[in-house]
Amino acid sequence: MKDKAIFYHAGCPVCVEAEQSLADALDKSRYELEVVHLGKEKSRVEEAMKKGIKSVPALLIGGKPYHINFGANLNDLK
Amino acid sequence: MKDKAIFYHAGCPVCVEAEQSLADALDKSRYELEVVHLGKEKSRVEEAMKKGIKSVPALLIGGKPYHINFGANLNDLK
Repeated sequence: MKDKAIFYHAGCPVCVEAEQSLADALDKSRYELEVVHLGKEKSRVEEAMKKGIKSVPALLIGGKPYHINFGANLNDLK
Repeated sequence: MKDKAIFYHAGCPVCVEAEQSLADALDKSRYELEVVHLGKEKSRVEEAMKKGIKSVPALLIGGKPYHINFGANLNDLK
């Protein structure tokens, strides 16, 4: 069974670049990648915060948050 | 031919965790991963800075720097 990875973003330039290079570089044979646009799916901002996500772009792997560079603060996406 | 990815770290707890989850999750069939401990290889701090790395842990993919969470500032590793 594949591990789940979630890439949270908000469509910002920093986010798009991180998705195209870092998120895309994940081993898809081991990880099932879900991409969540928090600007469009505002109902999931709360969920992301509970998982420790503070800014986007960010990757959640093994249940842990990894913030990648800085695009936007989650508080500004509510 | 594989693309090159470089994971820069300094042995800090944040670095170790990022290496074990995020760097390890890269697709090794597409990326050749080099792991550089800047605390031990101080001669490479300058190289990392020139590539745009400002803090560790960080991944260089496609020649672009992706800072992952925050462990230490590169200026403190000189």
